[in-house]
Amino acid sequence: MANGDKFGIDILGKASYDSPLRLSKRHGDNIFNFVKENEKILLDTSLKEYKKCLAGKKEPLGMVKAGPREKIYFNTRKTKAAIVTCGGLCPGINNVIRSLVMGLTYFYGVKEILGVRYGYEGLIPSYGHDFVDLTPAYVKDIHQFGGTILGSSRGSQDVGAMVDCIYENGIDLLFAIGGDGTLKGADAIGEEIKKRGFDISVIGIPKTIDNDINLIDKTFGFETAYNVANTIIRDAHNEATGAYNGIAIVKLMGRDSGFIAASAAISMPVVNFVLVPEMHFELEGENGFLTFLKKRLDKKQHAVIVVAEGAGQHLFSEDVKEKVTDASGNVKHKDIGLLLKNSIADYFKKNDCPVTIKYIDPSYIIRSVPANPEDSVFCNGLAYHAVHGALSGRTRFVVGKVNNRYVYLPISAVTNKRKKINLEGGFWYTVLESTGQPFKMR
Amino acid sequence: MANGDKFGIDILGKASYDSPLRLSKRHGDNIFNFVKENEKILLDTSLKEYKKCLAGKKEPLGMVKAGPREKIYFNTRKTKAAIVTCGGLCPGINNVIRSLVMGLTYFYGVKEILGVRYGYEGLIPSYGHDFVDLTPAYVKDIHQFGGTILGSSRGSQDVGAMVDCIYENGIDLLFAIGGDGTLKGADAIGEEIKKRGFDISVIGIPKTIDNDINLIDKTFGFETAYNVANTIIRDAHNEATGAYNGIAIVKLMGRDSGFIAASAAISMPVVNFVLVPEMHFELEGENGFLTFLKKRLDKKQHAVIVVAEGAGQHLFSEDVKEKVTDASGNVKHKDIGLLLKNSIADYFKKNDCPVTIKYIDPSYIIRSVPANPEDSVFCNGLAYHAVHGALSGRTRFVVGKVNNRYVYLPISAVTNKRKKINLEGGFWYTVLESTGQPFKMR
Amino acid sequence: MANGDKFGIDILGKASYDSPLRLSKRHGDNIFNFVKENEKILLDTSLKEYKKCLAGKKEPLGMVKAGPREKIYFNTRKTKAAIVTCGGLCPGINNVIRSLVMGLTYFYGVKEILGVRYGYEGLIPSYGHDFVDLTPAYVKDIHQFGGTILGSSRGSQDVGAMVDCIYENGIDLLFAIGGDGTLKGADAIGEEIKKRGFDISVIGIPKTIDNDINLIDKTFGFETAYNVANTIIRDAHNEATGAYNGIAIVKLMGRDSGFIAASAAISMPVVNFVLVPEMHFELEGENGFLTFLKKRLDKKQHAVIVVAEGAGQHLFSEDVKEKVTDASGNVKHKDIGLLLKNSIADYFKKNDCPVTIKYIDPSYIIRSVPANPEDSVFCNGLAYHAVHGALSGRTRFVVGKVNNRYVYLPISAVTNKRKKINLEGGFWYTVLESTGQPFKMR
Amino acid sequence: MANGDKFGIDILGKASYDSPLRLSKRHGDNIFNFVKENEKILLDTSLKEYKKCLAGKKEPLGMVKAGPREKIYFNTRKTKAAIVTCGGLCPGINNVIRSLVMGLTYFYGVKEILGVRYGYEGLIPSYGHDFVDLTPAYVKDIHQFGGTILGSSRGSQDVGAMVDCIYENGIDLLFAIGGDGTLKGADAIGEEIKKRGFDISVIGIPKTIDNDINLIDKTFGFETAYNVANTIIRDAHNEATGAYNGIAIVKLMGRDSGFIAASAAISMPVVNFVLVPEMHFELEGENGFLTFLKKRLDKKQHAVIVVAEGAGQHLFSEDVKEKVTDASGNVKHKDIGLLLKNSIADYFKKNDCPVTIKYIDPSYIIRSVPANPEDSVFCNGLAYHAVHGALSGRTRFVVGKVNNRYVYLPISAVTNKRKKINLEGGFWYTVLESTGQPFKMR
Repeated sequence: MANGDKFGIDILGKASYDSPLRLSKRHGDNIFNFVKENEKILLDTSLKEYKKCLAGKKEPLGMVKAGPREKIYFNTRKTKAAIVTCGGLCPGINNVIRSLVMGLTYFYGVKEILGVRYGYEGLIPSYGHDFVDLTPAYVKDIHQFGGTILGSSRGSQDVGAMVDCIYENGIDLLFAIGGDGTLKGADAIGEEIKKRGFDISVIGIPKTIDNDINLIDKTFGFETAYNVANTIIRDAHNEATGAYNGIAIVKLMGRDSGFIAASAAISMPVVNFVLVPEMHFELEGENGFLTFLKKRLDKKQHAVIVVAEGAGQHLFSEDVKEKVTDASGNVKHKDIGLLLKNSIADYFKKNDCPVTIKYIDPSYIIRSVPANPEDSVFCNGLAYHAVHGALSGRTRFVVGKVNNRYVYLPISAVTNKRKKINLEGGFWYTVLESTGQPFKMR
Repeated sequence: MANGDKFGIDILGKASYDSPLRLSKRHGDNIFNFVKENEKILLDTSLKEYKKCLAGKKEPLGMVKAGPREKIYFNTRKTKAAIVTCGGLCPGINNVIRSLVMGLTYFYGVKEILGVRYGYEGLIPSYGHDFVDLTPAYVKDIHQFGGTILGSSRGSQDVGAMVDCIYENGIDLLFAIGGDGTLKGADAIGEEIKKRGFDISVIGIPKTIDNDINLIDKTFGFETAYNVANTIIRDAHNEATGAYNGIAIVKLMGRDSGFIAASAAISMPVVNFVLVPEMHFELEGENGFLTFLKKRLDKKQHAVIVVAEGAGQHLFSEDVKEKVTDASGNVKHKDIGLLLKNSIADYFKKNDCPVTIKYIDPSYIIRSVPANPEDSVFCNGLAYHAVHGALSGRTRFVVGKVNNRYVYLPISAVTNKRKKINLEGGFWYTVLESTGQPFKMR
Repeated sequence: MANGDKFGIDILGKASYDSPLRLSKRHGDNIFNFVKENEKILLDTSLKEYKKCLAGKKEPLGMVKAGPREKIYFNTRKTKAAIVTCGGLCPGINNVIRSLVMGLTYFYGVKEILGVRYGYEGLIPSYGHDFVDLTPAYVKDIHQFGGTILGSSRGSQDVGAMVDCIYENGIDLLFAIGGDGTLKGADAIGEEIKKRGFDISVIGIPKTIDNDINLIDKTFGFETAYNVANTIIRDAHNEATGAYNGIAIVKLMGRDSGFIAASAAISMPVVNFVLVPEMHFELEGENGFLTFLKKRLDKKQHAVIVVAEGAGQHLFSEDVKEKVTDASGNVKHKDIGLLLKNSIADYFKKNDCPVTIKYIDPSYIIRSVPANPEDSVFCNGLAYHAVHGALSGRTRFVVGKVNNRYVYLPISAVTNKRKKINLEGGFWYTVLESTGQPFKMR
Repeated sequence: MANGDKFGIDILGKASYDSPLRLSKRHGDNIFNFVKENEKILLDTSLKEYKKCLAGKKEPLGMVKAGPREKIYFNTRKTKAAIVTCGGLCPGINNVIRSLVMGLTYFYGVKEILGVRYGYEGLIPSYGHDFVDLTPAYVKDIHQFGGTILGSSRGSQDVGAMVDCIYENGIDLLFAIGGDGTLKGADAIGEEIKKRGFDISVIGIPKTIDNDINLIDKTFGFETAYNVANTIIRDAHNEATGAYNGIAIVKLMGRDSGFIAASAAISMPVVNFVLVPEMHFELEGENGFLTFLKKRLDKKQHAVIVVAEGAGQHLFSEDVKEKVTDASGNVKHKDIGLLLKNSIADYFKKNDCPVTIKYIDPSYIIRSVPANPEDSVFCNGLAYHAVHGALSGRTRFVVGKVNNRYVYLPISAVTNKRKKINLEGGFWYTVLESTGQPFKMR
């Protein structure tokens, strides 16, 4: 029954302080109960998996349920926390910061919370970015703004130097809000802390607008992102119908996973083609994309295409394809939107069929908006649960929602691979149902 | 192992036609697979429940997985469908109608789809409401509008007369979009159809802005509703801070369940008190609401209160309390918002403490908006899965999402009681964490 | 030629300081020129009026052009300003506050700006409302929020006591943002200051969401108001069409003038009847409103009615009609929306014609929103011009836009009567053209 | 006194039919009066101009007041109208189409209105674009959508061939909605019609999102455009503050005139630099843009730049500068946004100062949105007045608002030059006041 350990979470030591929260330990009194240490949520919820486990007599994969514990590890009167935000903007960062500060202050009485400026740079003294003092008064309105009040940066910093800084500043809890690279960095910081034997907890709050974090239902900001894209697609359709054989191409975020493109397209059913990194497609040939596009124009005289930035990378010739990475280590993609635009223009010119192409690339317009109400609720939940988990002495974990329930997962479990659209699954099938595009374009 | 039958669904007969959908039956080809008849999703996803079932050797509760089947029951070339929308407005009705029409037409080739006008009235010829012919061209833009293009009505109609009408018009599939009463009506229609031995499938698509349908994660329109409420609360806060001892009361929908009030309050953290039907509270006394409100004003000179319409009904004196029901059979509540407003005014007058109270009741403003992008995605998914389920010959079922997955449930399973906020659960605890209000006000 | 003096503005004394602004005094250098003292804008721009003046050899009515002067009255190094906001909320108040603070600080180097809390109450020490120190850092983000960061109150205060307070706190410039009552109060303060011989300038910035200030093109917040109403009407139409013989009644602000109701109705052309205070109408009779409403329903089975709160006050019976005034001295109107709702219900019941009526009253939802971009531009312009006018030593004036140009007008000129819709003018005719309602309903 | 003729409008002949409108001819009856033929509005409303005219004994420049006339030229029972939309998208086109159709149909009883598809192409039969039949039912909801339901195209077509088509299809009134090129085309069509002696009226409705039509206050769509830009700038500021030395560049529409860039910047006061086509600026040098940008970063560590697409064209080296024109004959500008981005990057690299630059180009996102409520009101007014003017027999005119009043102007008067920001005027001065940027950067 080793399965049960797969999602086990590192703990600094035995939690021996009584939680200051006045919660209940019995059911029926209409007061929330402390979460017990052994409460777990199943990962696979199909009856089939149940039967498989039953047959194999093994315990199914369970994840640690998130929430406040009766005993906590830290002496909250002396606890000092820090918050750092890394990587590109994503709607909801300020909501998370705000709820972390409120939760630490009002639930547990944490008196000092440092805001680390400009990402991991802020943990390297030589950059000269001073800490900000985060108080309820300071953060009370920030949820209404996009961006991050702390600033951010891309790229990794020296782990040892960061741990020095964390230790020297007396930080007990480090909340790192960021994507894959940031979380790996947080894990490395946690590892180094462990090596040195420090009593410091490192907590990750996954932030990737692409929604590509392994295992978890969704990341914050993702819904806001496709909400903003929804309107842009609605109006791109106006550009398409506004000209004879009008074609609108909307490029959306999605380096490795096409969730934003696919969700936005379903949400605004005027899209005829969705191209995502998970799928293989060819431009030319009888079953190529351009042939299908031509058929569409012949029938309706306009078309709307939504493409994720990471789609169709194999279409770039070798010499332009050499991999480039940005400061965060992400592979920088060639601009598939421009390639499509140019390929479409060439193809229809060759076919003597005049088209009007409008190429729309709203990336920064989307990343920088405030969180929408769903994401606000979600960011708040993530932050509160992160606070409870941190105080309990757990470390090197992330908080997330799986099958609609908040859980804690080891950082390593969510960073070992990217979440991608399953081309054989129901979600992608809905995209095909909605757009009418074929299963395969090759 | 009788548990497995609890969520069994009525079927008209053996499905013997091949589905026109070109799906796959094997994994690994990147083509969606037909859903097998025995695929089920667990209701309870806790490890504890798993262990309990294991110990008791009983199969855990599973629900039928939704999706297209390899064999279908109806001869789609001759199938005629009808759609009816009942009850109050809710964001997303038109999205559901649109996706039903698109799915029936383009997936299965259904040629005739009738729009029933003004709810169940449209199935009673004496009202004189003619059917509308629903085609892709007719519905293509309707997702951008709130309301229902078919019109609606409240109240039940004679079941026998409706079945006569359905039968005489050659309707094979009846999609009923509505709340608790509508679904019970649909079930009764299905029962009568069964009695008469007709080959007609009745499908329910739960529509309740209050999100109070038993078992299922959420109903469509609910997220849009609290999204609109979010901004109204944000600005109500401006009214509260705009006056010395300013108090803003926002009354939101929620007859039996306070999900909208609670979610909206979490999403816009300026709310100090959330009052919902599930909780008991008193106005007067040391631990009464008014005492807490006074403390809040003393400290901050303003307060924002969000109250669900069904909250605090015990506060009405017997003579004003006699139950009144609307045409749908819903208990009409006394206006708790006005009662609060008046009670607060009296209390502070008695305490010689001048306050300024603004009472905001946005009900119809919320119900009538278009669906937001999340609800658009959701409505589309509900409709597509309803279409697949209907064609498979299932009847008297609803489509819904449970633990994030689409399932079919018997209508009776979701109408036998209302879903309510669990005051002992994590969601309500988050409300208390966010507002700072006490567990109990009595 | 005495006409020229009609809009003359009181001046504290000869402006003898050089403006710190580095503007130009000649044309052609692409640098803005100081406004000359004799620059005026015509009130009546018709050729007819021109000819009339020409024939009568009289100068046409001109208003003082707003803008920075070469010589200013105050020694800006020692100048202290104060800002007060009175009356109900209106979109844009914070924008005006922000731009006043920015203008005073950055254009003229004013070092101290007091924020008066809770309207004129804040100038009466016994209320105990301390001043707020307004700095650029304090106000920099407030334009993104509705309401007023200073708080407000209704009602007048003792003029002598307020002047005592202003004088004792060394205030040189008092900016009063408010409606008719507030402006009259400001004028009275200015008069008392004059009597006492103090060197203090009083500046009014007209704030009335109803847009009913005499002479000036529009007041800030008005456009935002009907913008918000626009969407509410759009969705009210969904309520109307959502039921057989559905009627939606939207009550909008407009105590004496129906500008919001009329503008909102034109902006969202689904409205069938607009009822405003300026028009007389009867409910009953052959040409009464109810008869026209019945005809509309007979033809289209739904209707949308927009009514200004001050419309149809003569319809209330004498006993309910006795005039009540709120703390600001405004006549509180009986609820015409409810009266319509009840009258319509009675009428159609009597006529045995079932209707469904939805009554929507969004007042506070509209008042409390942030300014839209047009109003943001406008508020900024008002504030900047108010600053320039104040420093020039003018007093007891308001800033406004007339015929699209910023001018200064004596407070008394804009408070001596309300601006109303001219029922014989082009604007009202457009309402009739758009709704199709008859010129007269009696 | 020849001035009076400067804005004279061509008339097909004596209007001899009675208007079907039941308007009044006397004041005081609360019924709108027919506009008299000699009613005019002054262009220059300054007192100075009045005195100049008085001294010179000349009549000031007056423009024909728009509105319904008592006598009309066309026999409305036989009148056939056509509507054509040309050039790029602009918010409000559908509003104009809708109100033209409603006005023609309901005010004057015009029975047949043709929608010309894809701009002037639709008047050249060889393109094969059939007319659309525009009826109230067809257009009733289109105001809620951006784009143009008729489609559009750029570029001119043979005037003679278009007149052939117009004549052969029995069109009496041609409404052309478009920009400078379209209006010139309409004027040429009108000239050719005159030559041939046809009884056909040609009416222009100016459409340029840039707001650069000579003489008139504003063009429709312009306010919506800067409204959308407002939010984009708000969030671009988040990108700027989200990184150390973060710089956000937002490029907005404005080929020859910077009204959108300037208005958007005033409306969202987070902008530090506005660069428009009207101004000259250098990048390098002591007073160059880059020097000022560096100072800004040194002080605040972030900057927001708004640049109009036509700004700084002199900065392109000769070889990249050769003028290219699009199909409409507009000069296609080199991408000043990219040039800025690259120049800034180079400059700060050279200065060893790391910066993060985000370049945002929302062009199509803005052009394709639905009209906002102000523009909806405005589009409606333009269309109604166009209808009245057309029926009166006037031709080769545009409808517009000058000094806040609707007037008719000869097409030639508004196309002989572009409206530009007066760098010496109050509007530009407000931009400088708001941003704090210097008068000159050279």
